[in-house]
Amino acid sequence: MNSEHLKALIAFSSQKGFIWGPEPEIYGGVSGFYTYGPLGKLLKNRIESIIRERFVRAEFYEVECPIVMPRPVWEASGHLAGFSDPVLSCAKCSANVRADEFIGEKFPELKESLRAENILKVVEEKGLKCPVCGSDFKKEVLQHNLMMKTTIGISGESFLRPETATTTYLPFPRYADFFRNKLPFGVFQIGKAFRNEISPRQYLLRLREFTQAEGQLFIHPDEKKSYYRFDVIADAILPMVHAGAQVGDRFNIEEMSLKDALTKGYMKSKAYAWTLHFAYELFLAMGIPKERIRLRQHRSDEKAFYADDAWDVEVNLNCFGWTEMCGVHDRTDYDLSQHEKFSKKKLEVSLEMGKVKPHVLEIAFGTDRPVFAILDLFYSKKAEDEGKSMLCLPLDICPVQVGVFPLFRKEGMPEQANMIADDLRDEFIVKYDETQSIGKRYLRAAEEGVPFCITVDYETMKDKTVTLRERDSELQVRVKAEELRSLLHRLFNNTVVFSELKGAVKQDSA
Amino acid sequence: MNSEHLKALIAFSSQKGFIWGPEPEIYGGVSGFYTYGPLGKLLKNRIESIIRERFVRAEFYEVECPIVMPRPVWEASGHLAGFSDPVLSCAKCSANVRADEFIGEKFPELKESLRAENILKVVEEKGLKCPVCGSDFKKEVLQHNLMMKTTIGISGESFLRPETATTTYLPFPRYADFFRNKLPFGVFQIGKAFRNEISPRQYLLRLREFTQAEGQLFIHPDEKKSYYRFDVIADAILPMVHAGAQVGDRFNIEEMSLKDALTKGYMKSKAYAWTLHFAYELFLAMGIPKERIRLRQHRSDEKAFYADDAWDVEVNLNCFGWTEMCGVHDRTDYDLSQHEKFSKKKLEVSLEMGKVKPHVLEIAFGTDRPVFAILDLFYSKKAEDEGKSMLCLPLDICPVQVGVFPLFRKEGMPEQANMIADDLRDEFIVKYDETQSIGKRYLRAAEEGVPFCITVDYETMKDKTVTLRERDSELQVRVKAEELRSLLHRLFNNTVVFSELKGAVKQDSA
Repeated sequence: MNSEHLKALIAFSSQKGFIWGPEPEIYGGVSGFYTYGPLGKLLKNRIESIIRERFVRAEFYEVECPIVMPRPVWEASGHLAGFSDPVLSCAKCSANVRADEFIGEKFPELKESLRAENILKVVEEKGLKCPVCGSDFKKEVLQHNLMMKTTIGISGESFLRPETATTTYLPFPRYADFFRNKLPFGVFQIGKAFRNEISPRQYLLRLREFTQAEGQLFIHPDEKKSYYRFDVIADAILPMVHAGAQVGDRFNIEEMSLKDALTKGYMKSKAYAWTLHFAYELFLAMGIPKERIRLRQHRSDEKAFYADDAWDVEVNLNCFGWTEMCGVHDRTDYDLSQHEKFSKKKLEVSLEMGKVKPHVLEIAFGTDRPVFAILDLFYSKKAEDEGKSMLCLPLDICPVQVGVFPLFRKEGMPEQANMIADDLRDEFIVKYDETQSIGKRYLRAAEEGVPFCITVDYETMKDKTVTLRERDSELQVRVKAEELRSLLHRLFNNTVVFSELKGAVKQDSA
Repeated sequence: MNSEHLKALIAFSSQKGFIWGPEPEIYGGVSGFYTYGPLGKLLKNRIESIIRERFVRAEFYEVECPIVMPRPVWEASGHLAGFSDPVLSCAKCSANVRADEFIGEKFPELKESLRAENILKVVEEKGLKCPVCGSDFKKEVLQHNLMMKTTIGISGESFLRPETATTTYLPFPRYADFFRNKLPFGVFQIGKAFRNEISPRQYLLRLREFTQAEGQLFIHPDEKKSYYRFDVIADAILPMVHAGAQVGDRFNIEEMSLKDALTKGYMKSKAYAWTLHFAYELFLAMGIPKERIRLRQHRSDEKAFYADDAWDVEVNLNCFGWTEMCGVHDRTDYDLSQHEKFSKKKLEVSLEMGKVKPHVLEIAFGTDRPVFAILDLFYSKKAEDEGKSMLCLPLDICPVQVGVFPLFRKEGMPEQANMIADDLRDEFIVKYDETQSIGKRYLRAAEEGVPFCITVDYETMKDKTVTLRERDSELQVRVKAEELRSLLHRLFNNTVVFSELKGAVKQDSA
């Protein structure tokens, strides 16, 4: 972990209006809860738009299911019985620590083999004490369930969902109708989920309140091996780390086509390979650089019991190294069977050849981690001595797209700049700024990731031309105000490159 | 209340994939919780996009604050003490009813004057019994708090927010920084809120889990009367019902300019008038017809104690008549003062002339009610005998924008139609459908609100032309496939009218 980078990033994010917290800050804050400030929310919205676009293009339909669901749902899903962490409590100060993490950090070699039944033994053998006050722990390991409980009506025991997937499965009979009893079909959900972590940490990576995004492909079990969409992506080369290649600390990435990966038996079905490819492409579309992504197969010791095939999309973060961003799981008919059993409703589609319970291929991720990854990967301190930072975001995800500045607050420049800003606002996210020197405003815009800035100056008042400046190259070009809109379009579409614009020159911004 | 229309609408919404519930349906359902199905979610997304666009154009910044907040926040906001409903419980079957509504429905004349302390007296005098089993009520009125409670960590008493506004106010010191200590500034939030209603009803109008959308304008108290944006909208004519005009059952709507309304003292400030106008325009932009909207001022007996000015945007629904959709409130410095007192942090901006605590003008609404209003207003049974329904949605909010159908499932038509559908998917929400006769598919598309349908037929295979059909007029025109994209653009932009297209004719769809 690069804690210096993390510290700088947290300071930068809160100072610039990306992420504030832990919230509520004015009341002291509660770990694991954050606010997306103005720029953070714009960034998160861009990422969620990209997710929507990708799913919709692949003919997945979005749904929005309730966050709060009654007890029987979570009995069926297994979350009430199995979704808990072991906790050690201090006998003196009552501090609580998550036992597996506490021990795993001190003795990494014990991490893999640690089981609930030998936690107390390890505590005794290693002489572990409360990290807060140094006293002994109580001689018991509590199982702390991660579900947040609430009440509906006077006494209806209910829980906040710890993931969106379960709530997505429940309207299954409705899907069967809506999709006219045809398979495969896809649905996805983007929404809040809650986990009562004992000690949330790693900033946005483990939150108590977070946003999940999960796609579910419902498919005939027999069609998995012959999925019609596979052929188009059969030759796509993906950076894979299969289970067998995971020995020691460093994993070798194999660049391999999906066709070859199937032949080698890394994955069991063409449909699964398609979902994995979809997930990979999605993270590229969000702006994560190719060389920072790998696909890692779950080893048999970490695979969930219901998952027939399981790989993670991992991103190599500056702060934390390779980090899970997305899990792709073949959940078979596990969930539908569970809910069928508990609800006593048949969860099947009626095909011409008879009834069938589909299998579910799941692409499970969230939108907080991608936001964090984007900040982590694109934030840089360019010139430490000036305190100058940069956020060189890809064009597709810039929170603010255009800055508009009057050179001075006089001679009609603010009015002219405001007119230009207002005019562009129907198509772009525009920031108007007239405070401090133009050099400081350029710096500020670069820190906020604004890719293009327009300045209204003396010449504008004479000939209606303005300067347009590019964040990354710091090149400027003089253009007619009336041509701004179409030029910006071409720049955002990548149909023109700034450095090739006629008259583009580097100018001193001070 | 038009309960027949409501019944038909609920059946239509669930059958077509707009709204499902109460959820979780397969477990019997819990009142007040619904799922947005595929079409409902597309519709809700469109409405939320319009809200975002409008706020962003007015230079409001979006934020996303936590849903779960600890106890002190809700002590300060007043929700813990005051946010409750009176409940009567049956002594025999333990059924609970909300006392004020139960009595108000039976004796509308008592509704206005009913106070907590005289509920038991009314029950006795009128001989009211449990509506479930007919037994006597217990001789006590419980105050049922509407907040849903949960726990953070082992014992941190917390609550799900019952509105977004309070959570929006809390990062105030961060806003002061972000907006560089300048007033006015605007922020808004769209997100989930929760109220544990005793008996939720009226479908999407009163939910236990719902989506709020609230804009907050922070302004210098002295600037309210001179707000710079007022002049642009001074002459706008709005349909108003001021407090003094509300006698009896029917309220007269006065069409009046904001300038005149200010002069008459209907509103106290120009800034408030601007926010009310903003709210009105927003509901028009969502597609609510002008003649269905009125602005109604709160009478002194219904105005919240902190609200200096208060009007509602009301929409005349087919199911429920005039219904509150949005509240616009001048909350003065009430909330900031409360949180200052409880958090002991100064909540002020530092202007050049000194520190000041801004006032807050609030535009408070949600997105479930607009979705309901749209369905309520645009759903119609066109030909009862055929069972044909229509959803003649305005173009801006159609969930699915284009239908693409092969006339028959043979001779390359499905492949050709799929190619066209795929090609259009990067810019439009497209539905491909090959099931049943073309006439049935047109009907189905009309029910789903799809405004334009493309059909691939024998001619397409020869000359690459297709038919394009308009939902409302049922006119068809033959166009080249390659011209579809630009023609659809012009239709959605309203730069061309279908009936004026060359060769547009009415054709039998069967």
